[in-house]
Amino acid sequence: MPVFLDTTDPDFEPAFAALLSAKREDSPDVDETVGRIIADVRTRGDAAVLELTAQFDRLALTADRLRFTEDEIAAECAKVDEADRAALETAAQRIRAYHVRQMPDDAQWTDPEGATLGWRWTPVGAAGLYVPGGLASYPSSVLMNAIPAKVAGVPRLAITVPTPDGVVNPLVLLAARIAGVDEIYRIGGAQAVAALAYGTESIAPVDKITGPGNAFVAAAKRRVFGKVGIDMIAGPSEILVIADAENDPDWIALDLMSQAEHDESAQSILVTTDAGFGQAVAEAVEARLQTLERRAIAGAAWRDFGAVITVRDLDEAAALSDRIAPEHLELCVADPEALSARITHAGAIFLGQWTPEAIGDYVGGPNHVLPTARSARFSSGLSVLDFLKRTTLAKMSPEALRAIGPAAEALARSESLEAHGLSVTARLARLNR
Amino acid sequence: MPVFLDTTDPDFEPAFAALLSAKREDSPDVDETVGRIIADVRTRGDAAVLELTAQFDRLALTADRLRFTEDEIAAECAKVDEADRAALETAAQRIRAYHVRQMPDDAQWTDPEGATLGWRWTPVGAAGLYVPGGLASYPSSVLMNAIPAKVAGVPRLAITVPTPDGVVNPLVLLAARIAGVDEIYRIGGAQAVAALAYGTESIAPVDKITGPGNAFVAAAKRRVFGKVGIDMIAGPSEILVIADAENDPDWIALDLMSQAEHDESAQSILVTTDAGFGQAVAEAVEARLQTLERRAIAGAAWRDFGAVITVRDLDEAAALSDRIAPEHLELCVADPEALSARITHAGAIFLGQWTPEAIGDYVGGPNHVLPTARSARFSSGLSVLDFLKRTTLAKMSPEALRAIGPAAEALARSESLEAHGLSVTARLARLNR
Repeated sequence: MPVFLDTTDPDFEPAFAALLSAKREDSPDVDETVGRIIADVRTRGDAAVLELTAQFDRLALTADRLRFTEDEIAAECAKVDEADRAALETAAQRIRAYHVRQMPDDAQWTDPEGATLGWRWTPVGAAGLYVPGGLASYPSSVLMNAIPAKVAGVPRLAITVPTPDGVVNPLVLLAARIAGVDEIYRIGGAQAVAALAYGTESIAPVDKITGPGNAFVAAAKRRVFGKVGIDMIAGPSEILVIADAENDPDWIALDLMSQAEHDESAQSILVTTDAGFGQAVAEAVEARLQTLERRAIAGAAWRDFGAVITVRDLDEAAALSDRIAPEHLELCVADPEALSARITHAGAIFLGQWTPEAIGDYVGGPNHVLPTARSARFSSGLSVLDFLKRTTLAKMSPEALRAIGPAAEALARSESLEAHGLSVTARLARLNR
Repeated sequence: MPVFLDTTDPDFEPAFAALLSAKREDSPDVDETVGRIIADVRTRGDAAVLELTAQFDRLALTADRLRFTEDEIAAECAKVDEADRAALETAAQRIRAYHVRQMPDDAQWTDPEGATLGWRWTPVGAAGLYVPGGLASYPSSVLMNAIPAKVAGVPRLAITVPTPDGVVNPLVLLAARIAGVDEIYRIGGAQAVAALAYGTESIAPVDKITGPGNAFVAAAKRRVFGKVGIDMIAGPSEILVIADAENDPDWIALDLMSQAEHDESAQSILVTTDAGFGQAVAEAVEARLQTLERRAIAGAAWRDFGAVITVRDLDEAAALSDRIAPEHLELCVADPEALSARITHAGAIFLGQWTPEAIGDYVGGPNHVLPTARSARFSSGLSVLDFLKRTTLAKMSPEALRAIGPAAEALARSESLEAHGLSVTARLARLNR
């Protein structure tokens, strides 16, 4: 059973605080192992990658087989049936349409002093996308990571996807092809991250690595951060549903289960203004847990981390939501826009009862790579900005330097940085000659 | 003497590669110490912060004196002379004017399927800015970190600045006041970062920590990343100047020295189309090194990491610059705009001979917190975006769900996520009833 809380209960605050601080993930300490793997790949390149792939993926490769050939990709893509292909293409088109709108503008202006200022956005030169193999091999994640990179204009986009025992997911390759991925390598784990960051004889290094992965992949991304850019380190998935009594309890139950089925560490929370409705949703969850294919996982997540919280009103719901800073937030209330306006910290908001979170996982358009573990307080979902960087621009006219140079000289003096000041002074001396 | 390279030399490529990969920083391994300090502050709060401040800053405080009072701040600010105050205010006004233009727009639209999509930007709830004490206590850095936070709308902005032996830099407090900082604490080191990230009895926790610091501060920021957001981990400063022969060698020498004087690990590189001009600049540097106040530091940086590279033409200069991906790039050539357009990777570009880099450190307007150590390949300088996060928004009409729901069902099925699919199926069943 999940925990049932009520804000009118005098013990609510400590119980809610405990829910907020619950440690949901056992992170095995794999950092030392990962450090050795990265050092090995840096030193021995392909040879290390091949040995580690034989060891972890039980797959004997040669260097010339690390990368999928165009023929291999075409052969795998041909295995996908028409309905799945059409669904992937619908998703890709919608994700692209959303992310194209995120492209930021360059700017340039000249201010009254005569300084021409501005900035310019440019894509990273090369990006690498890690795609998990096996159970958690999601073609939708390929689209969600690769499309923003291509919209940003990244000229070279590589993905790595392990194929344990040689098993390939054709949908992953098709998603990569639809998204415009340039290179696909059949490797995984920390060795794949190391190969992307440092390069090997067969794999050119990239500048940015994104994508989900297990504890080894997460530790490897942390370690190569600085040498390359990385996206966030994702934790287990979360959903918060704020619902009034005018909802179908079964719909809300399914929405809660759609996060719970990801992972035994996932968290599903219902906040409702109606205790009876909360009870009805809990009962609907139990009914669905009788038959769901992934009932073992979803049931464990619901039992260990699920919660049903009854609140006095929607103001209280909004305040609790901001303290949770949920990755996914569903607003199943009469006026979801009004409630949304009262929310400050959330990765993605789904408004109204016709917007189940699963729509956002696949075809809504917004990205499904979102901040977990309360990090929506300070970070955002994946976007085209993750594959761009900004160069600031400044040009002084002689008049501008005359106008603002003396302030720079004064500040340089106050910071005891003499050469800084002299670089201005020498130029002003020429102007004043 | 710096290294002199020429792209026409057959040995140029290995020599340039060695320059690129030169390890400039000895990072002492303080991670274990920092781990202990953070754990101590988490456990014992103020008591730990006070003990560590007594130990490292030789300063006996009580909890009620951790924070500067308004009277103390006013008294320190009164010590700043009028010229310095005016210079800080000029700088603040220009930095604010630049960063206001960075504020991103919210967006909302309804697509042909009937889905209303968009996003919304909101500021982090609280930000903490680390300001070094002692030698590297720069009021300009307070402005560069605090103003973007306040432009972003961060409601609570705290700074920590150590005051070793009780020594306070009045300019730092005045800069904080001008920038609109809300709280100032006289603490530093890993203990300050821990207090900002986890909070103590006297210091409320923040959501984002930015600002430069020594090895202890950098290690602490890495460790609290995830609990809070952080900006980049800054390395030693760098400048690349591309100059033709139509420049005053002394100006260019001063520009090179203005980075070299920061730090013995700083790097100053001149790329020029004229070997004789390169020689003249090197001579001008030697002349300036006779008298510069910080000649010991600047001389060591120039000797150990400086370089003068002669190239065939500006195309070659642009290509080398992109391989270096410099933090600061000065273009002292006849047509700096044309050359700038050929550059892809740089933190900040300064166009033309009237724009010494030092202008950008203080009063140009763009931020002086910029990506070092080749990370301009994948990251940007500090901006208002560092203090904002984006929430994506999606609302399906029944018609939109009918149009795109089946694609979500198909993808959920292909990923074996049954509840995801059922959350759509249950709603479509109602629509189709």
